[in-house]
Amino acid sequence: MNSGPKLTGATRLYAIIGDPIVQVRSPEVYTEQFVALGVNAVLIPAHVPAKMFDTVIPALLALANLDGLLVTVPFKVRMLPFATRLSTSATIVGAINAMRREADGSWSGDMFDGIGFVRAAERKGERLRGRRVLLFGAGGAGSAIACALADAGVSSIRIVDPDSGRVRDLIGRLHKTFAACDIAPAGLDRGDVDMIVNASPVGMQPGDGMPGAVGQLTPDTLVGDVVISDSPTPLIEHATRHGCPTVTGRDLHAGQSEAIMGFFVPASRPIGRSLS
Amino acid sequence: MNSGPKLTGATRLYAIIGDPIVQVRSPEVYTEQFVALGVNAVLIPAHVPAKMFDTVIPALLALANLDGLLVTVPFKVRMLPFATRLSTSATIVGAINAMRREADGSWSGDMFDGIGFVRAAERKGERLRGRRVLLFGAGGAGSAIACALADAGVSSIRIVDPDSGRVRDLIGRLHKTFAACDIAPAGLDRGDVDMIVNASPVGMQPGDGMPGAVGQLTPDTLVGDVVISDSPTPLIEHATRHGCPTVTGRDLHAGQSEAIMGFFVPASRPIGRSLS
Repeated sequence: MNSGPKLTGATRLYAIIGDPIVQVRSPEVYTEQFVALGVNAVLIPAHVPAKMFDTVIPALLALANLDGLLVTVPFKVRMLPFATRLSTSATIVGAINAMRREADGSWSGDMFDGIGFVRAAERKGERLRGRRVLLFGAGGAGSAIACALADAGVSSIRIVDPDSGRVRDLIGRLHKTFAACDIAPAGLDRGDVDMIVNASPVGMQPGDGMPGAVGQLTPDTLVGDVVISDSPTPLIEHATRHGCPTVTGRDLHAGQSEAIMGFFVPASRPIGRSLS
Repeated sequence: MNSGPKLTGATRLYAIIGDPIVQVRSPEVYTEQFVALGVNAVLIPAHVPAKMFDTVIPALLALANLDGLLVTVPFKVRMLPFATRLSTSATIVGAINAMRREADGSWSGDMFDGIGFVRAAERKGERLRGRRVLLFGAGGAGSAIACALADAGVSSIRIVDPDSGRVRDLIGRLHKTFAACDIAPAGLDRGDVDMIVNASPVGMQPGDGMPGAVGQLTPDTLVGDVVISDSPTPLIEHATRHGCPTVTGRDLHAGQSEAIMGFFVPASRPIGRSLS
């Protein structure tokens, strides 16, 4: 390795909080970006035992040289009360995956799962404004993506989820902020869309099929899937067969880390903006 | 830089705790050694505001991937109650400058200011056993060095400090553990020694002279000074003029970091051992 950070007494700290933590790739990805930007900072893994979370977090936030946190399983919801303020996305999703210390010492919480998807689509030159979206999944990822897509100006979102109460709740939360977007549960006819996103876990297990009925695809249909896998998911495979542009789980992750770096180190932000 | 660490989710953490923290060099020194040893670990600076110390430390110790701490100003004494057990050196000095997580999750506290001096002298090929020592300073550094010298088998220690109560207290604490060593306040006659150590702050300020009367030096007299300075301290200069072997503050620091690396990563320990 020839581009590791040089730690000094002046090094600023960022940490990813999780339990377990060994599986995370953020320390490598973000630290490399800090080095590339010439920022004297590292992102360290912080293994916070779940039962200690509520006592450890305030202490970490008190470290005067800690400037930001990434939050992963199982803490994205439990982190909410520790933020001084929340972005629109974090409020609607009801979870945080990144926190930043502001100049006055307060902490801003945000949720980048959705903006990561939007950023990845933009990177591929895809227009989102005016799109008619079919979205599978109304959980954390689905909520975040719905929020980011509404913010990006899609004209309609139709949502599929086996839990109809969860769909109604999400639509209620989205309507308050994004009144101009036509958001509703998906009906049986799923033909009138030009964008399909899977934000459900279907596709993670070998042998999984499509997340649900998707109607006829054309080469204009933009297809996304949050599932990260070595081989294309059934939905991405189906889209590729029809000549559709795609956004994969890996694309989303890359878009997300770009967006979070812009949040952590605002001067580094190349394009776009964080939600709210 | 071409030897920086590669941070991953599996990276183990060590931290130096201080307030302020930007001036410390340990993150660079120790992280380079972890890299050289092929250990996936970094030593990060942790700026703990002094007023938050008692709440932040238990939380840091709860991080499951934190394996060790260095402790610097102003926390060496305040860290004592957070150790599960103390070394002889930490007990006698009444302060900790390094803590290590044991396999059972408990924390061992140690004080390496003195062992660092002994290690540095050994590196220069100097015998300590049987030496007759004149020691200036009975504070933290002086206590630690007296303890390490007694443990290394010097035959006598004569101590000079303007605070005679502090000298008596230190001698009382040392006697309990090192009964075979002849330890007493220095008298007016300082001729009968073959080792002189300055562990007082005299020599830190430009214009400082010798820490006190030192009698006649011979080329056999080993002379040490804890003061770190760019040009030789008056005592080191005096010793060099008389052809004496010397141990400087920088030598002590190098010996200390070698000893602490052996404490943090026992397999890396090249020679010697930690006190107790």
